[in-house]
Order: sequence, then C-alpha cells, then structure tokens
Amino acid sequence: MINIKMQIEYDGSAYNGWQKQKNTAKTLQETLENAIQTTLKESCEVAGSGRTDKGVHAKGQVVTFACRNKPDFPMFLHHLNETLPSDIRVKSVEVVPRGFHARLSATGKTYVYYISAGEDAEVFQRKYTYYIEETLCLEKMRQAAQRLVGTHDFIGFSSLRKEELPENASTIRTISDILIEEEGHRIKITYKGNGFLYNMVRILTGTLIEVGMGKREATSVDAVIIERNRQLAGFTAPPQGLFLWDVNYDKE
Amino acid sequence: MINIKMQIEYDGSAYNGWQKQKNTAKTLQETLENAIQTTLKESCEVAGSGRTDKGVHAKGQVVTFACRNKPDFPMFLHHLNETLPSDIRVKSVEVVPRGFHARLSATGKTYVYYISAGEDAEVFQRKYTYYIEETLCLEKMRQAAQRLVGTHDFIGFSSLRKEELPENASTIRTISDILIEEEGHRIKITYKGNGFLYNMVRILTGTLIEVGMGKREATSVDAVIIERNRQLAGFTAPPQGLFLWDVNYDKE
Repeated sequence: MINIKMQIEYDGSAYNGWQKQKNTAKTLQETLENAIQTTLKESCEVAGSGRTDKGVHAKGQVVTFACRNKPDFPMFLHHLNETLPSDIRVKSVEVVPRGFHARLSATGKTYVYYISAGEDAEVFQRKYTYYIEETLCLEKMRQAAQRLVGTHDFIGFSSLRKEELPENASTIRTISDILIEEEGHRIKITYKGNGFLYNMVRILTGTLIEVGMGKREATSVDAVIIERNRQLAGFTAPPQGLFLWDVNYDKE
Repeated sequence: MINIKMQIEYDGSAYNGWQKQKNTAKTLQETLENAIQTTLKESCEVAGSGRTDKGVHAKGQVVTFACRNKPDFPMFLHHLNETLPSDIRVKSVEVVPRGFHARLSATGKTYVYYISAGEDAEVFQRKYTYYIEETLCLEKMRQAAQRLVGTHDFIGFSSLRKEELPENASTIRTISDILIEEEGHRIKITYKGNGFLYNMVRILTGTLIEVGMGKREATSVDAVIIERNRQLAGFTAPPQGLFLWDVNYDKE
C-alpha cells in the first residue's frame, strides 16, 4: 500500500460538514471517497486534517489515504477533478511516507474568518462572509486578539463539555497569531495555532465581534481563559465566514 | 399609478436567464415579480434594462414597474429582500417620472467579463469567472480592443440573424471604452457603450481571447465589422464570466 496526501479546497455551502455520517446527509468526506473510488476503481478511507462543520469552507484542507498502486498523478488529478462536483477541487497530490497522517502529523493550522460590517449583504459573497449591520472598531478587536495569543486552556472558547472529555484530553492550545486586516470591503481575521478545539475559531470570532461592537471590553477575554467558562465568551459566529486556510506539517 | 425604479444585483447561476418564459423554467424576472407581489399584495410587470442570458450575473441591473400606492421604501426594501432568494438583492428603490422606462430610457450600459488564464479553476470563483488553460497576451488584446472602440455596425459580433431583424432595426452601436485590467488573479474586461446587441459582449470577449492566445491577429477584428459576418468573429465566451455592471440614464 502507498500513502497519498492531497490538498483540497471546497465550498462547504451544500454539504453537511466534512465527516461521513450514517444517515443520508451529503458530506465532503463521502463525496471525496466516492470520487476516488470511481477514479481508482478501489475503495478507500480518507483522513482529513480535521472536520469542518456544516457550511464551513476550505482553501487548503489536507487529506491522506492508502491505495494499492501509485496512480499516474497528472492523469489521476485530472480525472478526479472531472469526477468531483464543481464545489470541491483537488489542488495537489503526492506520495508521503507510511507514517504520515493528515490529522495526527499536523503541527499547525491556519483559519480565516471573513466579516462584512456595516454594509449590505452582496449576493456574490453571501455564502463566504458573515454580514453584520453594525460597524466594528478594529483597534479594540486587535487589543482583545493580542490577549488571546499564547498558550492557554481554551475550553471556555469551545463547544466541548468538560464532563464529556476523555480523561487525558488536553484543551490547552497555542495561538501563535491573530491578524485582523481590511481586505476590500471585508474584514479578514487570520488565526494561526498548533490546533483548535471544536467551534473554537467561531466562538473566538463571535467574542471579537462583540468587542468590536463595544458590547464588551477587550480585557473581558481574560476571564474566559481563567474561568474556563463558555458562558463568559461571546456568541458562536455562523459557519459561512469560516475557511480552513492551511495545514502545516513540520517534517513529512 | 406611480413609477418605481430599482437597482438589483443577482447571481444568475441558478436561473434560466432574465426574461419570463411560458414554460416552467425559473427566471429572474418572474422571481422578482412574485416577490414584489408577495410584498406589496399587488401584481405587477417588471421591465428590465435588458435581458441577461442563462448564467449571466448582474451587479447593477435596473428595473422599473408601476404600482398603485407608494410603499414605505425602507420597509418595502427590507421585506422585499427578505422575500427574495439569497441570490437576488434589491440595492435601491426610488420614485421616477411616469415616462421613465428601465430599457427605453437607458443611454448607456457597462458590462464586465472575468477571465482567469493559465491557472487552475478555484471553487469560490468558478461560477463568476471563465477559466482557460492558456495564458493571454493582454497587450495584443488591448490593441484589438482599441480597434473595436467607436461607432460601428456590430452585427458580425452578435448572434442576431440579418434576415430576422425588423426592418428599421439598427445594428450600429457605439462602444466608448474597452478596458482590460488585471485584478488579483483574474483579468477584468470592462465594456462601456450606448447599447449592445444579442450576445455581443460574449462574442467580443471570445474574439479578444483568441487574439490574446495568438490564434488571430489584433487587426482581424476590422474584417468582422466591415464584412458584417459572424463567421469571421471568435467564439461565444460562456455566460458565467459576464456581469451586467451598470446602466446609465442621462436624465431621469
């Protein structure tokens, strides 16, 4: 068996998230596995670097899977993209060592969240942007963002329930950078870190938005970390603004 | 009756073009008329500044329609946009004099065509961009574009059949400008003129693309105008790259 790594991008609007499900809902994983099976005439199980929720997009999701024979890559890429629906595209494919795993080998991830503030929703960006009527003070958001950067227990910024966590599961993560920029008419928030908990980027974003609106102080994020209390954090920003942007691997 | 003008934008991907049809295909005009009827409790016929083909988008389509009573505009706009599907949005609404008509009063139009050349298709722009594998020489395309600017008989650049034209119909139009720019990873061609014939922008674009690929000389566009012969022009570029960008009215 050889181990294959692919980088893919997708518009998550029409899917019920990444992870394959027992019911009939259409998922990205299943759609990709079916397309690979059609192309290679070989069934396979694809591992993603992480699950993305319903409606979340990816510019650089990474997947690995095992297959019996190495296909001709340019041909394989061409046929696979012809087989896939137009909202999923494989950007690259390569052979990686056996031990390499899209999720377990990942050492860092980048997420991007797009917001449009104080402007009318635009039909061409609606599926890729969270529109809010209020304007945002980016300076205050940046102050709050700086307090979040670092190694902390982020469970207060996730939808995980403490009592449901496996015994050894750590909720400590390192955020190395949160960049808040204006890009055309939109605000782009880039989160870089070694890993993110369930719903963490969306709750961080909801909290930063509340800071930007003046509904809470930038310093209020400290208590969420210290108290480990989801109730103290902001709302969960909706999925359509979120993109899994990139996945990093130290050695491959 | 009062006369109302609205500016609208839409993603044309899911529609069978602008114009209402007798069969059951979903059109933009019909969808808009139904939403106005739901909002105003009054049936109306909407006139667009022009028809857009299946799959063509609009950033600034203009429509007019008559209704019995002037609605409260902020409320009307809000309810209408709530009623409309998310791929159509009304940007503005105003009362105009009785004689004003979206199509008949128009004195100029701007269309934009987006191309991505020599790059892989990107899932988030696929519905709004024409992807070609070859790279394009923009300089040659600009030389051809300059030869097209002016007042000419453009029937060779349209899908109209000479023998089917009404007796007094003129196929002479004035193109005041064709601007070819790079915008991020895409090439943006902006056409400004006093009016455009059926499929004219798509055939002009197909012809310019052939010039950019080196398949024909920039000077070859002259013969299309002189000979009034569709066979001498380039292919009809596909609809998804095309946007009705703006409509001008000298006096309102």
